[in-house]
Parts: sequence; structure tokens; C-alpha cells
Amino acid sequence: MLFKEQVQRYFESLQDHISASLEALDGKARFIEDVWEHHTGGGGKTRIIQNGAVFEKGGVNFSAVWGLLPEKMAAKMNTDVTPYFATGVSVVIHPYSPMIPTVHCNYRYFEQYHPDGSVKTAWFGGGADLTPYYPFLEDIQHFHRVHKAACDKHHPDFYPKFKAWCDEYFFIAHRNETRGVGGIFFDYLKENLSATFEFVKSCGDAFTQAYIPIVERRRHEPFGEKEKHFQRLRRGRYVEFNLVYDRGTLFGLETRGRVESILMSLPKEAAWEYNYTPPPDSREAVLLRCLKPRDWLNETAL
Amino acid sequence: MLFKEQVQRYFESLQDHISASLEALDGKARFIEDVWEHHTGGGGKTRIIQNGAVFEKGGVNFSAVWGLLPEKMAAKMNTDVTPYFATGVSVVIHPYSPMIPTVHCNYRYFEQYHPDGSVKTAWFGGGADLTPYYPFLEDIQHFHRVHKAACDKHHPDFYPKFKAWCDEYFFIAHRNETRGVGGIFFDYLKENLSATFEFVKSCGDAFTQAYIPIVERRRHEPFGEKEKHFQRLRRGRYVEFNLVYDRGTLFGLETRGRVESILMSLPKEAAWEYNYTPPPDSREAVLLRCLKPRDWLNETAL
Repeated sequence: MLFKEQVQRYFESLQDHISASLEALDGKARFIEDVWEHHTGGGGKTRIIQNGAVFEKGGVNFSAVWGLLPEKMAAKMNTDVTPYFATGVSVVIHPYSPMIPTVHCNYRYFEQYHPDGSVKTAWFGGGADLTPYYPFLEDIQHFHRVHKAACDKHHPDFYPKFKAWCDEYFFIAHRNETRGVGGIFFDYLKENLSATFEFVKSCGDAFTQAYIPIVERRRHEPFGEKEKHFQRLRRGRYVEFNLVYDRGTLFGLETRGRVESILMSLPKEAAWEYNYTPPPDSREAVLLRCLKPRDWLNETAL
Repeated sequence: MLFKEQVQRYFESLQDHISASLEALDGKARFIEDVWEHHTGGGGKTRIIQNGAVFEKGGVNFSAVWGLLPEKMAAKMNTDVTPYFATGVSVVIHPYSPMIPTVHCNYRYFEQYHPDGSVKTAWFGGGADLTPYYPFLEDIQHFHRVHKAACDKHHPDFYPKFKAWCDEYFFIAHRNETRGVGGIFFDYLKENLSATFEFVKSCGDAFTQAYIPIVERRRHEPFGEKEKHFQRLRRGRYVEFNLVYDRGTLFGLETRGRVESILMSLPKEAAWEYNYTPPPDSREAVLLRCLKPRDWLNETAL
């Protein structure tokens, strides 16, 4: 089997594992699946969960597409218009309860070819990050600890490096705040592709262990309309990040990907209020202190 | 008085005229004003109305700022990093009732200088567009008719040209639909600056005549939660346009402008639902037929 086929197979099995685990956890809603084809080649399977007992809206998507790089994208990537192949799995889960964080992970593999069809360049990218509304230190530390363990199996430098990259990538520059409390992120990993694939598998496999215990711990935490309102305002920031900065989203839109699959990352509801700032000693103000790079595994308080 | 000062004065007076008219129309909420300074020079006055009898959220902003063009912006504009001056007025009004359209207008003037301070290039840009949720043909025609009259005073080609430009600019490519039912739009008008200024004044002055009669006609139209839900979904599209495509928004964010003033254009509430499509014969489906370039003044039905 070609290397890219092995990667594609793994991403498909990861989609199955994650969607089955989340469905079991929700207990009420089922994922619906839409199978689609990409206009230049390949396609994907979009799985969406909506209005569940735990999950308000979320998607677990797989795709493997190919074609010619659109000119605009090639320019952004500092490369020529050549054939490419891209496969990946992409997860965004927005729970109903503001006590449970939104979570995202995405792992992808990209190949670009010479005109004769030989591989010109290939790389892995991906990561996972957590976006709490009402943060709990033990949840944040759990998410980071599980990802650190996945990294440490492969190289002691990986976690510190990819944790820092995550803080840098998921940064809403115009708000001067991070999207959430981070996790890991990496892109354009071109060396030792087989070893990197093993690393990506460790990260992908870590996702459910990193997230499910948080959901279980927080699903019965009480909240009211005030907390839902704050969650909607913060989901507005999530929308801002995804539409203004997220490379995957913009790549998808520019390659005329399937819009409903790409924008499954957007929350069911978002709100904007002019100049909203939480009162200094409120629970809401605690979140804002978390939206900057912090050494979570060594923190003792939020 | 320098030409740019005359333009700036006009925009300030237009802000006063529009905010006073809308406040009188709402009858309940008042505009709050925030005066701010830009980090590289100049500043603005942001006026926001929220939770009114008619207007759920809206802003009428004025600014006059200067500094050095950021490198990224200069590249996008195909120009060098030089000093610039930009002044404009920007209006976005989201009414509470889904029977009243959202409206936007923005008129701006830009000067760019040689290192010795002499003017290198200068231009006007702007326009006005209407975004209905439950469209009424007479409202759409009224909005276009008033803007056509403002254009016709200056040149018979202006309305057809700027109407077409508006359809092209306010286009959500990834959705293959226009943002709303258009209006007029123009950019980089560099010739005959004094005559162009007179034209811009006619357009700016036309705004309240174009919009207020629509509000008056629709403010007592009945609606319920179903219509509010559809409005929130459509406001999601408004957010998509503004954050992915709108040049003014992206320019503002990239020049590190005042975020709350730039993003006042976002609605109070927006929603996303996977794969939402209105039933074929519903009132909601009527709107979708309006989201493509149409010769509104010669239409006889939606």
C-alpha cells in the first residue's frame, strides 16, 4: 500500500473511533453521515451531531481530495500550481453546557507532485486545542498531560515545541488573546515521514482520552442563562478565529471545498455585544486570565 | 481648508445626521458614543445603539486616522509602505424585527503620500447595501430608486456601474450567493476628486431617505420565533461575509484599528445549523431567490 493510502486509512479509522466514542458518550443524538465528492477529485465523509444530550453541535470529518492547487493558495504557500493530494480528519465539538469546553483536533497529510507525478514535497500537520468557557484547572491540565504523554513517546522536545506553536497559532491577534487554553499544534513536518506518521497516530489516538474524562466530570455541573449568554459571546470569538485566521478553513473555502463540511466548526449560536467586559471579580473574568500562553502543567491556580 | 479636511468635516456631519435620524426613529434607545485615538495618529467617534424599540444592534462610526501603511496591507494594495490618511463614515444597523432589513453604508476617502509629504494618490470608495430577511419588493425597489436618483444627478452611467459593482463586491463566494439585495458600491475613484466628492455627498445624504421609509413601513409587521430563527441563520451569513471578505473589516483588523468599532458590524445574535435549507415553497425560500444579481428596478415579483 502506498504511504499516502496508509495515512488515509488511519484517518478513516480515527474518524470511526472518535465518532463512535462521542456518540456513546452523548447517549441521545446520533451522528448523521454525508458522503461527498470533491469537484477536482476524491471526497469525504462528514459526520455531524446536533442537539444531543451533551453535544449541541459538532462534526467529525474525514476527507481525501486531490487536484491542482488553486493559484491563490499556491501563492500563499510560496509554491507553484502543481497537483496535490490532501487527506485529514477534523473534529470540532461544541457541547451545550458552558461548563464543558469546546474541543478541536485536526490531523492532515499533504503531498505535492512534480509534473511527472513524482512526489515533490510531503508533510504532516495538525494538533488539538481546548476552548473552555468556565475553566477548571484540572481539566486543562488533563488535556495537556495526555497530549504531552503522546508527544513524549516520540521526542522529549515535541511537547514544549508544539505546545508553544499551538499558543502562537490559535491566537486572535485583533483581540490580543488566545482562542482557548491551547494544546499542541504543528505544521509542515517534512522529515522522517514514517516516524512522523507514528507520532501523528499517537496524537490522534490520544484525543478521546484527552477529552472524554473532561466531559464526564462536567456534564452535571449546574449552569443557567447567564452562563449560556457568556458562552455565546465567547463562541463569537471562536467564529472570529475560524473565519479570519484559520488556515484550514480558508484553504477549504478557497479550494471550493464542501462548505457545510468546512463550516461545521461554527457553533450553533454566537453573540456579539458592544464592548462587553466581565466584572473584575466574576467567574467570567477568570476565563480571560486563561487566554494567554501559560505553562499549564506547572500552574497551581487559574 | 485642505480638501481632506473638507471631506472629514462632511463625514462628521453625516454621522451626526444619520445617528440623530435613527435615534428619533427608534424612540427608545439612545446612541452611546465612545471617542478613541488610533495608535499611529488620529482617531474616531463610535456611536452604538443596542436593544432599542426597533434596532437590536447597530453602529454609526466616524474616523480619521493616519500613519504608515502596514507592510501586509501595502502588499495587498500593490503599493509601497508610505504614510497614509484615511477618513470615513461607516454604518451597520441590525433591526430586531426580521421584517426590517439590515442596512449598511460606508463612505471613505484615502490619501497616500510621497516621502516628502506630497500626495501620491487619493481616492474615494463606498456604497450602501440592503440585507433583508423577509424581502418585500417595494422595499428593495425603494432602496435602489433612491440610490439611483443620487447617482443620476452626477452621471447616467453611475447607477448601472455601481449597482453591478455592488453585486460583485457583496458576494459570498463559498455560498455562491450575494449578501443581500445590493445597492451601490465603488472603490478607488481617483479622478476628478472634487466632482467625486459631490457625488459621494449625494450618496451619503441619500442614506436616510433610502432606509427610513422601509423601517416605518415594516416596523409593525408581525413575526414570531420561527422568523427570528431564520434571521439568526441569515445573520450567520452576514458574519461570514464580514470576516472572510470585507476589505474594510480586514483593513481595520490588520492596521490594529479599534476592534470594538470595526466589529460593531456583527449582529447581536447569529446561528449556524448544518445543511439548513428552507422548504421549497416557504417564505424563507423566497429570500434565496433574491440573493443573486437582479435588475430590481425592472422586476415585477420577487
